[in-house]
Amino acid sequence: MERDRSAPVVGLDVPAEIGMPVEEIATPALIIELDQFQKNVKTLKDFIETHGVRLRAHAKTHKSADVARYQMSQGGACGVCCQKVSEAQALVSAGIDDVLVSNQVVDKRQIGHLAEMAKSARVMVCVDDAGNVDELAQAAQAAGVEIGCLVEIDVGAGRCGVQPGREAAVLAGRIAQARGLKFAGLQAYQGSAQHKAEFETRKALIGEAVRQVRETVDLLAAEGLGCEIVAGAGTGTFALEAQSGLYNELQCGSYVFMDADYQRILDENGEPVSMFGNSLFIVTSVMSKTRPGFAVCDAGLKAQSADSGLPRVHGRDGVTYIKWSDEHGVLEDPGDTLKLGDKVWLVPGHCDPTCNLYDTYVGVRDGKVECLWPVTARGRVF
Amino acid sequence: MERDRSAPVVGLDVPAEIGMPVEEIATPALIIELDQFQKNVKTLKDFIETHGVRLRAHAKTHKSADVARYQMSQGGACGVCCQKVSEAQALVSAGIDDVLVSNQVVDKRQIGHLAEMAKSARVMVCVDDAGNVDELAQAAQAAGVEIGCLVEIDVGAGRCGVQPGREAAVLAGRIAQARGLKFAGLQAYQGSAQHKAEFETRKALIGEAVRQVRETVDLLAAEGLGCEIVAGAGTGTFALEAQSGLYNELQCGSYVFMDADYQRILDENGEPVSMFGNSLFIVTSVMSKTRPGFAVCDAGLKAQSADSGLPRVHGRDGVTYIKWSDEHGVLEDPGDTLKLGDKVWLVPGHCDPTCNLYDTYVGVRDGKVECLWPVTARGRVF
Repeated sequence: MERDRSAPVVGLDVPAEIGMPVEEIATPALIIELDQFQKNVKTLKDFIETHGVRLRAHAKTHKSADVARYQMSQGGACGVCCQKVSEAQALVSAGIDDVLVSNQVVDKRQIGHLAEMAKSARVMVCVDDAGNVDELAQAAQAAGVEIGCLVEIDVGAGRCGVQPGREAAVLAGRIAQARGLKFAGLQAYQGSAQHKAEFETRKALIGEAVRQVRETVDLLAAEGLGCEIVAGAGTGTFALEAQSGLYNELQCGSYVFMDADYQRILDENGEPVSMFGNSLFIVTSVMSKTRPGFAVCDAGLKAQSADSGLPRVHGRDGVTYIKWSDEHGVLEDPGDTLKLGDKVWLVPGHCDPTCNLYDTYVGVRDGKVECLWPVTARGRVF
Repeated sequence: MERDRSAPVVGLDVPAEIGMPVEEIATPALIIELDQFQKNVKTLKDFIETHGVRLRAHAKTHKSADVARYQMSQGGACGVCCQKVSEAQALVSAGIDDVLVSNQVVDKRQIGHLAEMAKSARVMVCVDDAGNVDELAQAAQAAGVEIGCLVEIDVGAGRCGVQPGREAAVLAGRIAQARGLKFAGLQAYQGSAQHKAEFETRKALIGEAVRQVRETVDLLAAEGLGCEIVAGAGTGTFALEAQSGLYNELQCGSYVFMDADYQRILDENGEPVSMFGNSLFIVTSVMSKTRPGFAVCDAGLKAQSADSGLPRVHGRDGVTYIKWSDEHGVLEDPGDTLKLGDKVWLVPGHCDPTCNLYDTYVGVRDGKVECLWPVTARGRVF
C-alpha cells in the first residue's frame, strides 16, 4: 500500500515534528539551537548600533526567509545580500523587500529576472564590467524599474571586481549616466581575509582594503559621485571595517550560525574569537558499532560540506569524527562510550554550503523542537 | 508584479527547456551527455552478461528514478541499491520495484518505513547487529511482509559490518530463524579499494576480500545456510569481484557518470581505465573577467562537492579551475581565451555528492536539451 504522498512523514520528508523531543529527530538533520541563534543576532545588532553602521545580513549563509525576517525585524538588518538572482527571488517571493545581489549578473535572462524582481522589492546588484552596465540599464528601462548598482572593486581577494581608483571611477560614471540605474556606491569585500586565523594578518589585509577604498571614494567624490553605500565585511573581519570610518554597510552572514572553521580564528590576544557561538549543528545517529574504539554515524558527505575540513564533535569528550564517505562518518571513540542509536551533535566545518544540502532547519530550544523552517532558496544556484 | 509561482522559469526553478540549444542552459547546471551515458550503461550490461553476474546498480550515485529505470530496462540491472530508506522510498514511489538498502537501518521509525515499503516492492537491507535483526523481524511481522537481509561483513574498508567467518555465521543464523526475515546472503563491499589509483593495490585488496568472503560462504554452507546473493563491488574494482567466481551481484554506481577522481585510477598497464567515459558535467559561465590570465565562473562549492578535489575543465586546453569559494570558481586562462558569458564544462571531482546538490539533470544530445530529469531523491539523507 502506497502511503499518502501529500502527508509528510517524519524521517522521509521532514526530520521532525513541532514539540518533539530532540532525541526523536530523524537523522541526519540540520539543527538551529534557537537561544544561541538569537544571542548571535542580538550581539551583532548591539555592535552595529554602537558603531553607527548598517548591517545587510548575507542570506547566502542560510537561504532562509525565516532567518532573514528575524535578522531584519530583531537584528537591525536593513535588508539582505544574496549571491544569485534565483536565491534573491525565493526570498523576495517570501516577503523580503530589500535585496542586494552582491555578485555580478551577466546572463541576459537573469538580468531580466533581476529587473522583474525590482517591481516588488528594492533591488541592487554589483558590477565590474561596462557592457554589463549597459545591459542592466536596458533591462531596467524595459521593466520600468530602477536598479541600484555598486561598483565592485577587488581589494585583495583576487576574484571579481575592477581595480580600485581610476577603473572604478570610470565604471561609476557610466552607471551614473545610465537611465534605469542608480550609482549606489562600492562593493569592497575582502573575502580571502575572513578565515585567516591570526588577527594581525586579518588586520593588515583589511587595512590595505581600507586604503584602496579611501583612494576610490576620494576620487569619486572629486568627480561628484558620492557613495551612499560602502559595503563589505564578513564575520571574520567586520569589526575592522566598522572601525574604518569608511565602510558603512556590513555584510556578515556566518555570524548567525558559526562553524568549525570560523571558530579557529583568533582575536588580538591569540584567543578564539568568542563574540558569537555555534547555533548550527548536525545531529547524527550511531548506525553501526562493530569494532572496539570506533563507531559509524549516519552523517557523511551528503550531510555536510567537505571544503573546510571535518566537523567537530559537540559535547562528547574523547569522541572524534575522523573520516567521511558519502553516507557515513567514522567516529573514534577510545572509551567505547557510544552505542547503536546514540545521537551525536556535530559542528559543521563550513556553514554556508552545508545549509544548502538540507530542505529544513529544525529549530530547537530546551530539548524540544520549536519550529521547522524551510531552506527557502536551497539549490538556487542560478 | 509577482510572477506566477506555478510556472517554472528557466534560470529560477529549472535550468533549461526541452529543445533548447545547450548554450542557453542557465548556469551552473548539471548535465548528462546522453550518448556517453547510454554507452556506459551498455558497456556494463555487456560485461555482466559475459561474466554471468547480476548488476544491482547503485542509485546513491544519481538518486534518479529515470536513470534507475533506464539501468533496469536497458542496462541489465536486476534492481537498485539505495543507502537510505528515504532515498529508497522516493524511487519506489516512482515505480522502482526491487531495492536493496545497502546499509544498516537502526532507527525504529525508519525500520517501520522499510517494512511499509516492502508492501509495494521487493525490499532487502544489510545488517551487522543482532538486536537490529530482532527489530527488523518485529517490524516485518507487524507489516505482514518479508524483508531480505544480507549480513554485512567488513572485508577491509573499516566501516560497517561484522567480522567475516564466525561472527557473520552467528548473525546469519539469527536471521534465518527470524519470522518475517529471509537470509539472502552477504554484503561484502570493499569501499576503500575503489579509488586506489594503482591496479595492483586494488587487486591485492579485493583478493583479500575474496578470501574472507570465501571463508564465510564456506562456513555458512557447512551450517546449511546458502548465500543466494554475494554482493559488493564498485566502479573501481568490479572486474576483480566478477572474476572471483564468488561475488554474483555487482553494485556499481559511478559507472553511469564517472568523475575526475575515478578517471585518475589506472588499469594493469598503468593507463587510465577507459571502459567508461564522462557523461556528467557541470556547465558554468564566465561571470567576471577583470584580470589578465584569469576569469571567474559561477560554479563554486554549492555547485559541486569538494571532497575529491577540484573539477577538471573539459574541452578547453590551457584553462584550469584553480580555486573555489561558495558561489565562484577561479579559472586560470593564461591565453585570455575566455570572455564574459562564455560557457565552460567541468568534470566534477566526485559524482555522487555533486548530484545531490541539484534538483534537475539536463539531458543533452547533439547540442540540444533532450530531457529534464528530476533528482528524485535529492536531499533524502534520512
